[in-house]
Amino acid sequence: MAFQKAFTPDEFQRRVANVKRRMEEGGFDLLICQDPANMGWLTGFDGWSFYTPQAVVVHAEEAWPIWFGRAQDAKSAHITTDLPAANIVGFSEPLVHHATEHPFDELCALIIGRGWGNARIGVDFDAHYYTARAHQHLVAGLPNAKISDNRELVNWARVVKSPAELTYMREAGRIITDTMNNAIAKLAPGVRQYKVIADVYHDQITGFDGKFGDYTSLCPLIQVGEGTSTPHLTWTDEPLPGSGLVVMELGAARRHYHAPLTRTAHIGKPPEQMVKLTDVIIEGGDRALEAAKPGVTCEEVEALWQSILNRNGFEKPSRVGYSIGLNYPPDWGERTASLRAGDKTVLEAGMCFHFQSGVWLDDFGAAISEPFIVTDKGGERISDVVRELVVL
Amino acid sequence: MAFQKAFTPDEFQRRVANVKRRMEEGGFDLLICQDPANMGWLTGFDGWSFYTPQAVVVHAEEAWPIWFGRAQDAKSAHITTDLPAANIVGFSEPLVHHATEHPFDELCALIIGRGWGNARIGVDFDAHYYTARAHQHLVAGLPNAKISDNRELVNWARVVKSPAELTYMREAGRIITDTMNNAIAKLAPGVRQYKVIADVYHDQITGFDGKFGDYTSLCPLIQVGEGTSTPHLTWTDEPLPGSGLVVMELGAARRHYHAPLTRTAHIGKPPEQMVKLTDVIIEGGDRALEAAKPGVTCEEVEALWQSILNRNGFEKPSRVGYSIGLNYPPDWGERTASLRAGDKTVLEAGMCFHFQSGVWLDDFGAAISEPFIVTDKGGERISDVVRELVVL
Repeated sequence: MAFQKAFTPDEFQRRVANVKRRMEEGGFDLLICQDPANMGWLTGFDGWSFYTPQAVVVHAEEAWPIWFGRAQDAKSAHITTDLPAANIVGFSEPLVHHATEHPFDELCALIIGRGWGNARIGVDFDAHYYTARAHQHLVAGLPNAKISDNRELVNWARVVKSPAELTYMREAGRIITDTMNNAIAKLAPGVRQYKVIADVYHDQITGFDGKFGDYTSLCPLIQVGEGTSTPHLTWTDEPLPGSGLVVMELGAARRHYHAPLTRTAHIGKPPEQMVKLTDVIIEGGDRALEAAKPGVTCEEVEALWQSILNRNGFEKPSRVGYSIGLNYPPDWGERTASLRAGDKTVLEAGMCFHFQSGVWLDDFGAAISEPFIVTDKGGERISDVVRELVVL
Repeated sequence: MAFQKAFTPDEFQRRVANVKRRMEEGGFDLLICQDPANMGWLTGFDGWSFYTPQAVVVHAEEAWPIWFGRAQDAKSAHITTDLPAANIVGFSEPLVHHATEHPFDELCALIIGRGWGNARIGVDFDAHYYTARAHQHLVAGLPNAKISDNRELVNWARVVKSPAELTYMREAGRIITDTMNNAIAKLAPGVRQYKVIADVYHDQITGFDGKFGDYTSLCPLIQVGEGTSTPHLTWTDEPLPGSGLVVMELGAARRHYHAPLTRTAHIGKPPEQMVKLTDVIIEGGDRALEAAKPGVTCEEVEALWQSILNRNGFEKPSRVGYSIGLNYPPDWGERTASLRAGDKTVLEAGMCFHFQSGVWLDDFGAAISEPFIVTDKGGERISDVVRELVVL
């Protein structure tokens, strides 16, 4: 049976055309994208090979992108993309973790060989896997090119989702709904953290109605007691306490489209301040999502949220949300629009955000977050889990 | 209950002293390490925060390393490390994904503020998360420093494991033994790939005897039929066929120390060529592991393996193994020693490798891999799963 591609060829053609328009505006002849989500979005390429140097190259006058990567992974490109075979190029195996040479030496030779050695090249300078060393080899190997930061050109092209992409977002929302509800049901004094997380992983992958889940770009996060004052700790073997806070930030990914969700629970009767904090978080989130319609800016959504927090004596110095969609580890954020002061991005229908309303105080924190889609009616929640502080 | 640290303070003191000796030999006053495994190894820092810029800084004359990262993650450093509070420095939240400023602007100010602005600085140039953009900000912010690639200085310090580390490696080996045996038992015609993987994740985290597992640096990999000719595809919803090859590469991580393992199964009677290939892979692996004693070089181990392959009419162009240990996504390799031609690293007792004997032919592939520890008696296998081609 053949590999089931996530999108039809015309979807990829539209994406490439969109990117070529942005390249013209940005003054680029050629793009080099190492961000795995950019690579996947442009071509459908899928595989856990992003730990070695690889890239998708887009030339303004070339019909198809070029996939460049490790020889043993080229077959994955043949299986998961519609690219013509000539546009799938593997690099030599000895270059993997070589002390002085680098796979991008061969990428440079490829670019020069195609007559693009003088091109204006936009590179994913801040993609997680585009290392300083890779950049040195690229610059040394293309002495006549004009190489500059493409400033997340493809990430910005990804911000507004197509109907097909929104289907995967909603399916991810359904998976995380089930996953979070099951995880909450498992919380009880004495239950060890890792046992909750083992089941979370199982649910993430199992999905629903045969719609399986992929690995998520962040691992499941659980914080207990004092740990709730910082967001990115992972599980231990400690039993849940007889009394105290538990915060879980979990995601689900459907064909690598992500729905992250955070809920806060309290074992035993919660202190009044916690109840108040979570009530305020919910109110702020509700008002912000109602306002999240096309034409409103990111900073306006954040200001609304912050005003409700401030009115109640709280504040959140960190951003309250960020664009989400297709992604690969280590982050499900798209590194583009953020819901925060100063971000003047105008919302459009089909944008997707993780409204991450975590408030971390000195001694504890609480977070109730939502993935949502921007629609004419405001933010459409794609998950459905009780938002109130869960009291166990 | 307090966070259970993986190592005692004196283990970290020995590691830092080891690194300082290497810094002196390498001509560095200061190290900047962004590799999450280097950060964790030097300080114990643990958390899924490596998607934002962060680093551990080691100065030759400073008793303790300095942790630098996002303000909301500084609390994780207080919880998971023994660092004095003054050595834990958070950067300002608005710098996250800022269009023109960068967290390392503040790192540079910190370094200059400590009087280290003229230092000879060795940086993890090829760490996965050390981006070209981060490097630009570091170079611009430290105009009087001499900044160069530390060439995996800390990764190399990590290569020989301590007794405490070897305990975690063996525990990871035990977890992967159970995980792989359960996964093999689940393989049958009609079983959907993702259902096998959902259980793999559950087993990875459940561990044994209360010794839980962490997330692994690569996700579980499963390839079926034609997909076995490339190693890094992930699961789909396809049912396993009535006849054909299945290759699984799975890992387990105990306190982030990794044991990866690959096994090959055939549903139905396997073609003779496959049986021969897997027999040769096993023989080659057995001979190579017997030889993997202190004093032997990496390339000698590989040559032995390759000679057995060649004698039987096969070849493997890619390296047959690499150093493993503490790691974080996206790779459980240490980016140091590789078992391949040209690598003259001399084996020492306590080094750990993943002997990855995957042979990918045009139409199919097979792999039977082993994590092992270098000992005076040869490579000690830390997992225990039948190596022969599994016929179902």
